[in-house]
Amino acid sequence: MRAEIGEQPAALRRVLEEELPAIRRLAEVCRTRDVRLLFLAARGTSDNAAVYAKYLFEIVAGIPAALAAPSVYTLYGARVRLPHALAIGVSQSGEAADALEVLRAARADGYLTACITNEESSSMAMAVEHALFCRAGPERSLPATKTYTTSMAVAAALCACFAQNDALLDELRLLPEAMDAVLASDAALAPRVERYRYLEECVVLSRGVNHCTALEASLKMAETSYVRAHPFGAADFLHGPIAVVEEGYPCLVFAPSGQAFATVLELITLLQERHAELIIVSDEDAALERATTPIRAPRVPELLSPIVAAVAAQLFAYHLALVKGRDPDHPRGLKKITHTL
Amino acid sequence: MRAEIGEQPAALRRVLEEELPAIRRLAEVCRTRDVRLLFLAARGTSDNAAVYAKYLFEIVAGIPAALAAPSVYTLYGARVRLPHALAIGVSQSGEAADALEVLRAARADGYLTACITNEESSSMAMAVEHALFCRAGPERSLPATKTYTTSMAVAAALCACFAQNDALLDELRLLPEAMDAVLASDAALAPRVERYRYLEECVVLSRGVNHCTALEASLKMAETSYVRAHPFGAADFLHGPIAVVEEGYPCLVFAPSGQAFATVLELITLLQERHAELIIVSDEDAALERATTPIRAPRVPELLSPIVAAVAAQLFAYHLALVKGRDPDHPRGLKKITHTL
Repeated sequence: MRAEIGEQPAALRRVLEEELPAIRRLAEVCRTRDVRLLFLAARGTSDNAAVYAKYLFEIVAGIPAALAAPSVYTLYGARVRLPHALAIGVSQSGEAADALEVLRAARADGYLTACITNEESSSMAMAVEHALFCRAGPERSLPATKTYTTSMAVAAALCACFAQNDALLDELRLLPEAMDAVLASDAALAPRVERYRYLEECVVLSRGVNHCTALEASLKMAETSYVRAHPFGAADFLHGPIAVVEEGYPCLVFAPSGQAFATVLELITLLQERHAELIIVSDEDAALERATTPIRAPRVPELLSPIVAAVAAQLFAYHLALVKGRDPDHPRGLKKITHTL
Repeated sequence: MRAEIGEQPAALRRVLEEELPAIRRLAEVCRTRDVRLLFLAARGTSDNAAVYAKYLFEIVAGIPAALAAPSVYTLYGARVRLPHALAIGVSQSGEAADALEVLRAARADGYLTACITNEESSSMAMAVEHALFCRAGPERSLPATKTYTTSMAVAAALCACFAQNDALLDELRLLPEAMDAVLASDAALAPRVERYRYLEECVVLSRGVNHCTALEASLKMAETSYVRAHPFGAADFLHGPIAVVEEGYPCLVFAPSGQAFATVLELITLLQERHAELIIVSDEDAALERATTPIRAPRVPELLSPIVAAVAAQLFAYHLALVKGRDPDHPRGLKKITHTL
């Protein structure tokens, strides 16, 4: 897992170079066919990449995005009508059975289908018209890391090409360097995670486009350390669930600079008043100085920050697993491919 | 809260009778304007009603439904293009600030807007073209109960009228009686909840169209008892998070008969093998006989079962709050109206 976390800057550079022609072709098809809806089918970590894609397409391209509920197809045998939609699956293995069924049904009904996967000869790559690849190389550790960030990068590049937003594409190319900065701070991180040897439960908080970051950080911690990590959007958390926070209650907060920062800082202030244990990932001093455990992140454009924040989340989960004596590469109860139908 | 839980059969009868003309008019407008997408804006309990609406519209009417991420509008100032969409807000108070902003933006851009609210003179009712009302009467307890089930009923009736599915509408009219049956079993439930006096954490599991039931049961327990109740779809839970379940770990499972039952029963079997504490709400003996605490529910059509299962969930949360010495009517940290922007 640690080796694959470290491969991400290279994987990101590779996918942005080698996959861009295919991404541009699909974006052109989407414009020609007047795509007005993104219909995303995914599960697990890939579902978090899909949540990122939803925010990005709505904010940057102005088209609504729906996350498919696969059971609509697999249990109830329903068919959703998707004219002017792009039905797109996200699956690192390309074998997620229920997402696959959604795409097969959509294609059989004549709708535009695509996928983002790391496996070029996977069932999903075969099932859709337009397959986009992560080019992350084999992922051997069970928790997905480099396939998550490259899936997000492919989605972001597709969105940039579809919206003809060249600035976003240029900004994407600066991310590998930002990831290098996160990786360089790893040696300093390890000893600071020792403090969480007996952490059994926490909440993970973020807002806006980084909603996926809270979801994915929670999933990574649950997968590798069996910690009961529960993700919340800052707005939802303030309205009720904050009641669980008592003195010393651990809160992992992602607070990148940008439009979401003010609300997240407000939440951090409330948590500090409750004497919560604050683990804060941010590029803003105003947030970091309130943390018990500050984790400085490089400054990147907010809309792309989830791709870099993911690396910080992965490293934290990795060190937490080690300090808790777990094997992050082979967590119990986790399989690489979801076969549920 | 207990009084308002008891009012639900009457509230449901009333809304199905008095609101049906307005519901039919909106359904007719949707057909005339060739609505192909449901764009739902909601928060908290109402968001769970929106999740129910998503499943129902996709399964019954075959049109995709997207849950709006309000921060796309409120933080990033983006505008999502919604031609051939119905943008519909769900808010018991009609004052949920961020859902309101989504609807105002959609209407200003000329798209079709509607809402489901319990407050006829609320900001949301004023902001949209077509307001549908819950007609549940004033809701005085902070945890929403009767506004949740009537919101779902309005959504289900709208879906039935839009899809011209008269059978579904007829089945809806049988639900008040089923709710009466749940309420009649309440006296027997109270002493059985004593066992959970010191429960601090649990998972809540369901599948398919009852995904909203797990979300809402968790929220009700968290709101009224500060229990850390965490909802999962059965398919997602099997793939990883099941690792947290050790001997005696409490699992509240909703297992109504229908298409989702087989998978949920499979999950129950795995949980039983791990010697979990199983609280099971079901109309199927095959599920109930595996429970530590079986809660028999009346048999209703699966697609409508979330409306009845909600009553069982509310009663469980209510008795849990009492046995834990909490005041379910005035939970700490909870406000009736969400003002977050």
